[in-house]
Amino acid sequence: MSKIIRVNMSNLTVKEEAVPEKYNLLGGRGLTSQIVYDEVPPLCHPIGPNNKLVIAPGIVTGTAAPSSGRVSVGGKSPLTNTIKESNAGTKTSQFLARLGIKAIIIEGQPKDKNKKYLLKVNKTGLEIVPADELSGLVTSATVNKLLEKHGDKVGVMCIGPAGEWLMANAGVCFNDTENRATRYSGRGGLGAVLGSKGVKAMVVDAADTSGIKLADEAIFREGQKKLVEALRTHWVTKPGGALNSYGTAVLVNVLNEAGGFPTRNFSSGRFEGAAKISGEAIAEMVKIRGGKGTMGHSCHPGCIIRCSNVYPNPDGSEMVSVQEYESVWGLGANCGIDNLDVTGELIKLCNEIGLDTIEAGVTLGVAMEGGLANFGDGKKAIELMQEIGKGSPLGRILGQGASFTAKALGVARCPTVKDQGMPAYEPRAVKGIGITYCTTPMGADHTAGYTIAPEILSVGGKADPLSVEGKADTSRGLQAATAFLDSTGYCLFTAFAILDIPSGLEGMVETCNGVLDTKWTVNDVGRIGLETMRTERNFNEAAGFSKLNDRIPEFMKYEPLPPHNHVFDVPDSVLDNVWEF
Amino acid sequence: MSKIIRVNMSNLTVKEEAVPEKYNLLGGRGLTSQIVYDEVPPLCHPIGPNNKLVIAPGIVTGTAAPSSGRVSVGGKSPLTNTIKESNAGTKTSQFLARLGIKAIIIEGQPKDKNKKYLLKVNKTGLEIVPADELSGLVTSATVNKLLEKHGDKVGVMCIGPAGEWLMANAGVCFNDTENRATRYSGRGGLGAVLGSKGVKAMVVDAADTSGIKLADEAIFREGQKKLVEALRTHWVTKPGGALNSYGTAVLVNVLNEAGGFPTRNFSSGRFEGAAKISGEAIAEMVKIRGGKGTMGHSCHPGCIIRCSNVYPNPDGSEMVSVQEYESVWGLGANCGIDNLDVTGELIKLCNEIGLDTIEAGVTLGVAMEGGLANFGDGKKAIELMQEIGKGSPLGRILGQGASFTAKALGVARCPTVKDQGMPAYEPRAVKGIGITYCTTPMGADHTAGYTIAPEILSVGGKADPLSVEGKADTSRGLQAATAFLDSTGYCLFTAFAILDIPSGLEGMVETCNGVLDTKWTVNDVGRIGLETMRTERNFNEAAGFSKLNDRIPEFMKYEPLPPHNHVFDVPDSVLDNVWEF
Repeated sequence: MSKIIRVNMSNLTVKEEAVPEKYNLLGGRGLTSQIVYDEVPPLCHPIGPNNKLVIAPGIVTGTAAPSSGRVSVGGKSPLTNTIKESNAGTKTSQFLARLGIKAIIIEGQPKDKNKKYLLKVNKTGLEIVPADELSGLVTSATVNKLLEKHGDKVGVMCIGPAGEWLMANAGVCFNDTENRATRYSGRGGLGAVLGSKGVKAMVVDAADTSGIKLADEAIFREGQKKLVEALRTHWVTKPGGALNSYGTAVLVNVLNEAGGFPTRNFSSGRFEGAAKISGEAIAEMVKIRGGKGTMGHSCHPGCIIRCSNVYPNPDGSEMVSVQEYESVWGLGANCGIDNLDVTGELIKLCNEIGLDTIEAGVTLGVAMEGGLANFGDGKKAIELMQEIGKGSPLGRILGQGASFTAKALGVARCPTVKDQGMPAYEPRAVKGIGITYCTTPMGADHTAGYTIAPEILSVGGKADPLSVEGKADTSRGLQAATAFLDSTGYCLFTAFAILDIPSGLEGMVETCNGVLDTKWTVNDVGRIGLETMRTERNFNEAAGFSKLNDRIPEFMKYEPLPPHNHVFDVPDSVLDNVWEF
Repeated sequence: MSKIIRVNMSNLTVKEEAVPEKYNLLGGRGLTSQIVYDEVPPLCHPIGPNNKLVIAPGIVTGTAAPSSGRVSVGGKSPLTNTIKESNAGTKTSQFLARLGIKAIIIEGQPKDKNKKYLLKVNKTGLEIVPADELSGLVTSATVNKLLEKHGDKVGVMCIGPAGEWLMANAGVCFNDTENRATRYSGRGGLGAVLGSKGVKAMVVDAADTSGIKLADEAIFREGQKKLVEALRTHWVTKPGGALNSYGTAVLVNVLNEAGGFPTRNFSSGRFEGAAKISGEAIAEMVKIRGGKGTMGHSCHPGCIIRCSNVYPNPDGSEMVSVQEYESVWGLGANCGIDNLDVTGELIKLCNEIGLDTIEAGVTLGVAMEGGLANFGDGKKAIELMQEIGKGSPLGRILGQGASFTAKALGVARCPTVKDQGMPAYEPRAVKGIGITYCTTPMGADHTAGYTIAPEILSVGGKADPLSVEGKADTSRGLQAATAFLDSTGYCLFTAFAILDIPSGLEGMVETCNGVLDTKWTVNDVGRIGLETMRTERNFNEAAGFSKLNDRIPEFMKYEPLPPHNHVFDVPDSVLDNVWEF
């Protein structure tokens, strides 16, 4: 990948730049975080003219490497005010890579805040096109309108109304394999950054481009083979394995059994209705209802894990893609809701309005605690979500996320770190993931250092979830590995296989070497990951964050969580230790 | 003053404690800040059970010292998340002092969040009384209901609906000389802390108490005489002087002339309608309309400055007290409104709902910029304020203050520091006050270090408002003097006289010596003030704040302000220098 495209929305100019040498070995999150660190004033207003949005495919994205179609989106987060990277699986990423685009940097801000623009990318470059006709459209309508004009082979990135309204829970949406508007760089409100720049959408046309030129094809092929083999072997990632058969929601019963499944705004670790929203239940519904329902769906071409799904209506027509673990948890258990048709409807609304489902779920849980609905009231939950889509005053509250909603309603039990809603793992029942929530530069984020692997799944080791012992090291190690992985363009779920199968990890590193002409070994993975983490931490420190922001919400320190009745008893010194390297 | 009363709202118990020796020489802000520092976990949730609300009269409050009826309210602020002290002038403070109460500390939180309580204070002690009948009442109704039962001689502290709804702009209200519910410890949302503890009100009955026993009556009398003399001589504070004749709004024309009068959400330093909302205009209306209208009103017995007023309706009946400078600015010029009847109505709504008028004014300005009303639309401004009183979703946004409203509406031009709305002086036109806004532990606050005195009024020296030169020293010096003054119980407006008249300052210090049996000289004032500031700063640092939070809103650094067309060009090093002592 040979160029960086700089888009200035203040004066509507585009500049193509050679990739500076220091960025040569970076991709995905490693690159977005480095550019944000280098170019964004840490104290800038996230929706002001000085923030930037950076879009970058991973190192191996666009090649034949398996499950590597991730795109990273980075900037200063309107939700957390920290640096932020959020990635999605989409062919759009592969198209950017094939066009030789290492990164797109969107900066500045149009004077007229009502104007909307489209970025048109193809082999001749990038063009800024007025696109007021897309204003206010939900994401599916946006994608459909763009496909009509630009053909159904393009990759699309867009925002929904939430992004146009600069809501802190606005995600950046991409099209999936069949052009649904369902793949999200969801976390951290980067959709609002795009909205603040007047960019409603981007179409990426990779027609007439040759494939990616490999620096060392032999090494690449060797690595690819090892990695594919590992993915096809591991119980989590193999065809017919856990993810492929039941989707990510295979975790519902597992976490519920472990007492770490946050229920009714994090007031219990076990939900009596868990089985009804589990991956097994989703698969059963797909089987019973038939029609358009699909398990083992892939978010981008070339994925061999295929953990996605398409959930059907009772009549077999398509309701929504995807009933993910995090989504059925947040919009289900966390709201006391045990009905997949309700979670499906809520996910669909999130997709259409342009919201992160995790933040939306945590927000609804807080809203219910604040008295806006009873826990378990699916009808009211749907109405609340619709308010966001209307941009009503209530919607303006809910669209800003969980911390904001808690403040508006006077709720002190707010499960957020750095103002980002916690995902579907209870820190009081799974201590390591709490350490990750607290210490990652991203705000509460499970993907940043997924200690659930050893603590619950016995993947990459085995650890007692209720114990604090050794967990700073576990979290740091996984955070570093993830920072590396998020830079390669590989899906995070490849981690299950490479944590347990050494040759898989070797293979992954070799594919990178094949693209970059490096001599990395598996020993470089941690080092590279820690470098990216340090860069992100440095940005946050310059933005006013310190270890004092790496803390669990206060109520989790004095309120024991059933069924284990543990509080979050991780000492501050253990949290701080994550950054002592 | 001999005792501290500790009120535990978790188990509804009351404990009287002897004053620890380390608190002996403290009062007012010095004492509330020290107790908050000593007892409140810096990272606690402001509306959770571990925050505390501390109420303390000043060192000389309750004596015959002139203009000394201030009460300090302290805690961790729901608005800024910093330590907070906000003080008001009210006989309630004098009554607490005469009852020998050095401080009341309210801690804990009732399990049932709907229960309301009244604290009943008299010579026999403090009693917690169920008071659900006060639930939801506006402040005037609360005060009136309490007076019916407890007689019209009591001091009252209460919150309005805003405090009950835990809004971050909820103030703590006290009764004035004639029992209006109009005197506010307004800034920083401490009313929400009271609300979170289930305390709707407190009545203080000082019947049958003897006066305060002076340690050295001779010194006290000597000091009192000098201070009275200074106050009666200085052009700002003397009878028939600037404050007494025109109220604080005498500043409107002065600041407007200086180009430092923030207009239409801080987009200009000059307002074409300024004269219509000036102190002179208020006095003229009082004169023309007659009836209940009064200039030279006092907020508490024993004030000799008497800067307050009662503003009449066209028919001479009472509309509102007080048309203050900050209030007519925030709810007037900052919203493009040039009509005193409109500002009067808006102030009345703030008083009744229980809101700080400054934060409310900055919030309305942001709301207008965000499209909720046109600048200058008084009718719509009143409707927006009424929404807060309804607790509607829109009201829940506006009631949380300016930063919150800006976020909800996607407005990046938000004039706040540490999430507290800026008062009525433009930092781009008056650089020193900007330094105070940035560096005081309280969030944007003019009273914390009123550099307007030398920069605009030539009081306590003379400095060019547009120059940065020497302003860190000016701000630090005034911040220290103010921290001392806020601890004495004297009104801040005594500062005008003591800054210019050395014997006045001597007299003030001597009255403190007369009460405390100390040997302080004028040279101790700065030292004592800096000690309080350092304590507050230490709390904030432990709460996660650093010099990176001592920064002006970004837009003021790139958007020049008419008419001088200056940006805020104070280097970070100058801001940081304030704390280098």
